Amino acid sequence: MPRYRLRVEYDGTGYVGWQRQDNGPSIQGAIEEAARRLCGHDVGIRGAGRTDAGVHARGQVAHIDFERAWPAETVRNALNAHLGQAGERIAILDACPVPDDFDARFSALRRRYLYRIVNRAAPLALERNRALRVPRPLDHVAMHEAAQCLVGRHDFTTFRSVQCQAKSPVRTLDRLDVERRDEEVLIHAVAQSFLHNQIRSFAGTLRLVGEGRWTAGEVKSALEARDRAACGPVAGPEGLYFMHVDYAGDEECV
Amino acid sequence: MPRYRLRVEYDGTGYVGWQRQDNGPSIQGAIEEAARRLCGHDVGIRGAGRTDAGVHARGQVAHIDFERAWPAETVRNALNAHLGQAGERIAILDACPVPDDFDARFSALRRRYLYRIVNRAAPLALERNRALRVPRPLDHVAMHEAAQCLVGRHDFTTFRSVQCQAKSPVRTLDRLDVERRDEEVLIHAVAQSFLHNQIRSFAGTLRLVGEGRWTAGEVKSALEARDRAACGPVAGPEGLYFMHVDYAGDEECV
Repeated sequence: MPRYRLRVEYDGTGYVGWQRQDNGPSIQGAIEEAARRLCGHDVGIRGAGRTDAGVHARGQVAHIDFERAWPAETVRNALNAHLGQAGERIAILDACPVPDDFDARFSALRRRYLYRIVNRAAPLALERNRALRVPRPLDHVAMHEAAQCLVGRHDFTTFRSVQCQAKSPVRTLDRLDVERRDEEVLIHAVAQSFLHNQIRSFAGTLRLVGEGRWTAGEVKSALEARDRAACGPVAGPEGLYFMHVDYAGDEECV
Repeated sequence: MPRYRLRVEYDGTGYVGWQRQDNGPSIQGAIEEAARRLCGHDVGIRGAGRTDAGVHARGQVAHIDFERAWPAETVRNALNAHLGQAGERIAILDACPVPDDFDARFSALRRRYLYRIVNRAAPLALERNRALRVPRPLDHVAMHEAAQCLVGRHDFTTFRSVQCQAKSPVRTLDRLDVERRDEEVLIHAVAQSFLHNQIRSFAGTLRLVGEGRWTAGEVKSALEARDRAACGPVAGPEGLYFMHVDYAGDEECV
């Protein structure tokens, strides 16, 4: 069956998250419904990552199988037309044919996330639900330095949700960079895979460092404690963006 | 009476525009209502520019007079608290005391606007109502070059709404720059003052140039025609942002 890779943007506000669930509208469910309208039969899709309620994506990736080989542009345009008609806040950025053995989840080499903080006293008008606001001035240099003790292969028990279903709490964090752009503080996180709530746990903990309430040493101690209770408060979903997935032979479609 | 200068951010979606009107909620009206709740009496404010329905601001400026000299932070925080309680998409970025002769509108030396185009085939999910989407690839270099024939002192009859109430169609355009940042094409416009719909008329006309349908020469001819009918289609309000107002002795509060 012809398989396509979809690159997906969404505004996670108002969705229960990526994954189809009984308790409300999901991104996955909306795309599957659009696909059903396109091809007339039920279609399942698999995403590279499960994002939580309120989390956004600029480059989520999913794969989908159709019974018929549509032109890639037709797949993109038809899915977008059906999503638009349904009033969904989801856009298929592109669709491209891929080999049968491509799997959005299992072929992923690296996942890239961004956590956006708007660091100012005033509430958010334009960026409401699009970023976390932190009123107290953040020392982004201290945040970046503290982040470096999290990079590498570690047991991240402290930084994962108690509901996390991963068998092992050990992950290799490739990159955790903090930078400032005007009033925004941006946290870039890269790894092959992440644990549930891992980046929001990092963001909430680094916020404490930025506010001068924790030192880099305390972050290190929290990591070494391997104890969920040692984590800072988990930062809200509204600041988190699933940006990109790296695959081998990237950007090449068959 | 103590006068304050307010710097205001808003999401123009869902408002009839800056100015208080009978036909729906306005930004001005919402801030005046928040101010009334703060001080207990009716307060009028004046903005540096009247933005249309759907147009956003990151740096609109208004002045307001209170009977009592509140601390500037109290003005900002209290207005934001009342705006938030009312569910408004408006934030007071800062408030600062200014001399009695400061007038948000008449003291303005220069107004800065941004028009955002997202140049891609896919619809907008995260930027819906926040930018204009143009599917056809835009030649931003050609747009920038064509824009330069509009810079300077001209009769802008072609580029103003037939409803424009300004006595003269002559304005001096200080800057009209077009640049690309990844998939976005940004148009920066600076002048002491603008005519009604002037920037959206520029954006719609430059879009034609970017799409290869008009030459720079045709833009010049349209300007010289001094005829509203010679303008390209006016671009939608969702891409327009009122960014900044320059005043003499800027950023200094009394």
